[in-house]
Amino acid sequence: MKAIIYSVGTEILLGSILDTNSKFIAERLQDLGINLYKMVTVGDNPERLYQALKEANGKYDYVFVSGGLGPTEDDLTKETAVRVLGLEDEMVLDDDSYEELKKYFNDEKKAMTVNKKQAIFPKSATILKNNQGTAPGCIIGDKTKYILMPGPPNEMCHMFDEEVVPRIHTDLMIKSVNCKIALLCEWEISKRIDLSGSDPTISPYAKTTGVELRVTASSTNKDHLEASLKKGVDLVKNTFGPLLLTTEDKSREEVLIDELRAKGEFVSAAESITGGLVASSIVDIPGASDVLKESYITYANEIKHKLLNVSYETIEKYDVVSPEVAGEMLDGLHKATGSDLCLATTGYAHLGVAYAGVLYKGKKYIRKVKAKGDRNKVRRVVKNKLIDMSILIVRGEYEDYIGI
Amino acid sequence: MKAIIYSVGTEILLGSILDTNSKFIAERLQDLGINLYKMVTVGDNPERLYQALKEANGKYDYVFVSGGLGPTEDDLTKETAVRVLGLEDEMVLDDDSYEELKKYFNDEKKAMTVNKKQAIFPKSATILKNNQGTAPGCIIGDKTKYILMPGPPNEMCHMFDEEVVPRIHTDLMIKSVNCKIALLCEWEISKRIDLSGSDPTISPYAKTTGVELRVTASSTNKDHLEASLKKGVDLVKNTFGPLLLTTEDKSREEVLIDELRAKGEFVSAAESITGGLVASSIVDIPGASDVLKESYITYANEIKHKLLNVSYETIEKYDVVSPEVAGEMLDGLHKATGSDLCLATTGYAHLGVAYAGVLYKGKKYIRKVKAKGDRNKVRRVVKNKLIDMSILIVRGEYEDYIGI
Repeated sequence: MKAIIYSVGTEILLGSILDTNSKFIAERLQDLGINLYKMVTVGDNPERLYQALKEANGKYDYVFVSGGLGPTEDDLTKETAVRVLGLEDEMVLDDDSYEELKKYFNDEKKAMTVNKKQAIFPKSATILKNNQGTAPGCIIGDKTKYILMPGPPNEMCHMFDEEVVPRIHTDLMIKSVNCKIALLCEWEISKRIDLSGSDPTISPYAKTTGVELRVTASSTNKDHLEASLKKGVDLVKNTFGPLLLTTEDKSREEVLIDELRAKGEFVSAAESITGGLVASSIVDIPGASDVLKESYITYANEIKHKLLNVSYETIEKYDVVSPEVAGEMLDGLHKATGSDLCLATTGYAHLGVAYAGVLYKGKKYIRKVKAKGDRNKVRRVVKNKLIDMSILIVRGEYEDYIGI
Repeated sequence: MKAIIYSVGTEILLGSILDTNSKFIAERLQDLGINLYKMVTVGDNPERLYQALKEANGKYDYVFVSGGLGPTEDDLTKETAVRVLGLEDEMVLDDDSYEELKKYFNDEKKAMTVNKKQAIFPKSATILKNNQGTAPGCIIGDKTKYILMPGPPNEMCHMFDEEVVPRIHTDLMIKSVNCKIALLCEWEISKRIDLSGSDPTISPYAKTTGVELRVTASSTNKDHLEASLKKGVDLVKNTFGPLLLTTEDKSREEVLIDELRAKGEFVSAAESITGGLVASSIVDIPGASDVLKESYITYANEIKHKLLNVSYETIEKYDVVSPEVAGEMLDGLHKATGSDLCLATTGYAHLGVAYAGVLYKGKKYIRKVKAKGDRNKVRRVVKNKLIDMSILIVRGEYEDYIGI
């Protein structure tokens, strides 16, 4: 099954609004096992809209269109799709839709004039109810089915789930698993594992929260689907071992919180370069209060001394950005908080160099982190590496990966 | 001038990530006076990518492409655009780009193998530097210019503004001023000011960092451009008074840091609901060390007591999310740090209710903040309101706006 998505609206081309409908539909198509070939955004220009919609005719099984079903003269999607399919002579007023409109407006006259066109469809159309607004959608066409939906995201999403999904029949099933890989960057991952396979496919994604490998299997047979998916996930497991942090749909911070919660342990950080980002990324997860009570931002040298007892001699001798200072920060933090897992960061954002330190069960682990990019990016990379380290350390699996 | 935007990446078609690059480019094209005809998303499939890029050749002045410049075999954008333009025989290693790569990896061998292809371009290409990652971009083609940029949004946005914009020539001059408005949300702003004008246009944008009013003038005449822009900015100034925090191109945190630096003053925070987000947003600005030395995340009640001397009776009597507790947090923080500007937050993310407190020159200001949305959104709104309050308070201009 092949599909294309169109988003119709000049305001998207002007950059005024972000098109989230296409992503929503794309995600659903993935679940439905429909192959999405392309997403296209066009404006409310009649001729260009016609050309765009026409190109899809005969080439795809499904053409999903959102936007342009409103009551104004600018709203041309239905009229244009009807022209593409040559259904102009079939147009009739749909009584049910018209009744709905009248109910909605509580005022027959208004519905009669401005909105009446929203109730007019080709005789052969399947009408899609809109329980969030005035514009009903429809499915028209035979070999290539055009599925027309309103543009406002809440209307479109409801209509898709309630009216469109039950009318789509496919045999192909698709299923993905996201594997979160610790410490390695995208190209280090691609060196270690063969990404050229197609059953299943395995692709790396560099997200702001770290790198993921997505394993995707597709099949018309459920057993084969599951077997293919398992083969891919097993390959990732065997290749990366403990560096595969989780295959569950949760963030790295969630993984860390779950580990600590299971042990009844607490975490604190003494942050210099990250300046609160580590604590903030943990606090952003519901239930963070189970594992984090307090945390410190020790940005100035004098504060590292005051709160963490970092000695001025160490700073003088090794520089404040050094493994030695990171180590003393960890000791001081542990003394101040008694937290089971103590974290520390010190670095130069403009140079992209930092040390990320972890103290756990009396043992210190300090890692040099390098990153390129603006301040924000560098701080994020340091935070991500520190979280990855922490998970591995709490699991007792870091020792083998100190050198990578 | 006619343009089309391509977004390349199977992960977008799978619905895994939302394409924000196209909106960013669309907004910029609007400012540049370039007509955007279409946005298209295609996957990493070589043949379909070729067909898509080929369709644009000769039809548009500018073809903007983001994504697919990475080092792996999946990354095909440059090779495909080169095929479309028939430049295969022109490919050479760009020495500057190669040196950058070597510097980045600090290891010649690594760059030689995996990433080398990122430094290979057609001889006639204009290379676009990437100061956020490894993949340089390029402009290739003659009548139709293909502008190839990396997919990660931070890399793409920087490259667009720094490397692409200066190379685009149009007659229409467009100039914008972003007016950052304190405390008011988008609809409160739109109630107060007429947004229907067209010379200049004035549009509100709700960003994750707070609301901005963008005044945009466009003209082929420089004097008219400046006059129109001034008219718009004056209207905003007269309407919002001190709530207009800045018309300069700097973030709210930068505005606050500049105010404090000028006075030689320091800021600290005691964060509960925001959990480090306030400090982190300040530390994210270069030069933050001039105004921030230390900050605390006091998430648990016992830590509010231990570090800030918040009394258990106050928590018991008023609840931990109360103006009273916020007030004691401020007092305790001032005692612990002596900072000139003390900030505190306490709230319930799941209920979207919080108190943001400021202590400055012996006076306390505590504001109830309500926000709708997920945890992350609520925490961000609390942080933004607190920064807005702080700027107004440090400027001595908050008193008139306590009630809004």
